[in-house]
Amino acid sequence: MAPTKPMAKVCHYTDIPSHPFGDEAPGVFIRWLIDKEKDGAPFYALRLIEVMPGGHTPRHTHPFEHENFVLEGKGRVMIDGEWHSVEPGSVVFVPPDVEHTYVNEGTEPFKFLCGIPVPDLIPKEG
Amino acid sequence: MAPTKPMAKVCHYTDIPSHPFGDEAPGVFIRWLIDKEKDGAPFYALRLIEVMPGGHTPRHTHPFEHENFVLEGKGRVMIDGEWHSVEPGSVVFVPPDVEHTYVNEGTEPFKFLCGIPVPDLIPKEG
Repeated sequence: MAPTKPMAKVCHYTDIPSHPFGDEAPGVFIRWLIDKEKDGAPFYALRLIEVMPGGHTPRHTHPFEHENFVLEGKGRVMIDGEWHSVEPGSVVFVPPDVEHTYVNEGTEPFKFLCGIPVPDLIPKEG
Repeated sequence: MAPTKPMAKVCHYTDIPSHPFGDEAPGVFIRWLIDKEKDGAPFYALRLIEVMPGGHTPRHTHPFEHENFVLEGKGRVMIDGEWHSVEPGSVVFVPPDVEHTYVNEGTEPFKFLCGIPVPDLIPKEG
């Protein structure tokens, strides 16, 4: 597939489809705000994650980082066994190869931005 | 200088120092939320830009992209001669090598996130 040429884009995040994250993440939905495949983003993809009350992301490890900014709601983030409470305006950096999970601790959706490298920059596992 | 090892970080954005952007950007302040130098971010830096009422960023072009998410206030963004109104929740992708500027159009601070590649990934100009 030919690489996508980077194209300017301006929209509202609610214009971008929301998809269930998957069975390993109950109550979690993801919007790919800017990525390589559709926008030609050269280095990193920006996603918006919504965790419904009672929901959480997988407790997992992978060889790439997360750069987060909390938009709405109340949550807790576990990084390498340590738990942190977060709120709108919180900044979170999860380094590569460190176990982590995000949990909704409130009664409203917990929404945060999550940046990751584009697929061809993700280091190979193992 | 030895590269910084990626280190977990959780804080509030207001804990991170705000610096004037410079003479070419009247009324503009920047916080480097996550970057390579202090956090060991491998691919991209996350910044928070605050544009005071009446302020604007430089009208300029550079060989790297911006990935933006608007947090507060009302603004207008010019990309390659086209103007767009933006509000909280707006998503903006400015491709590399395209002229752009951000203008506060309201009476409150206009705040947005702005991701860029880390210095060693920025393509050389010319």
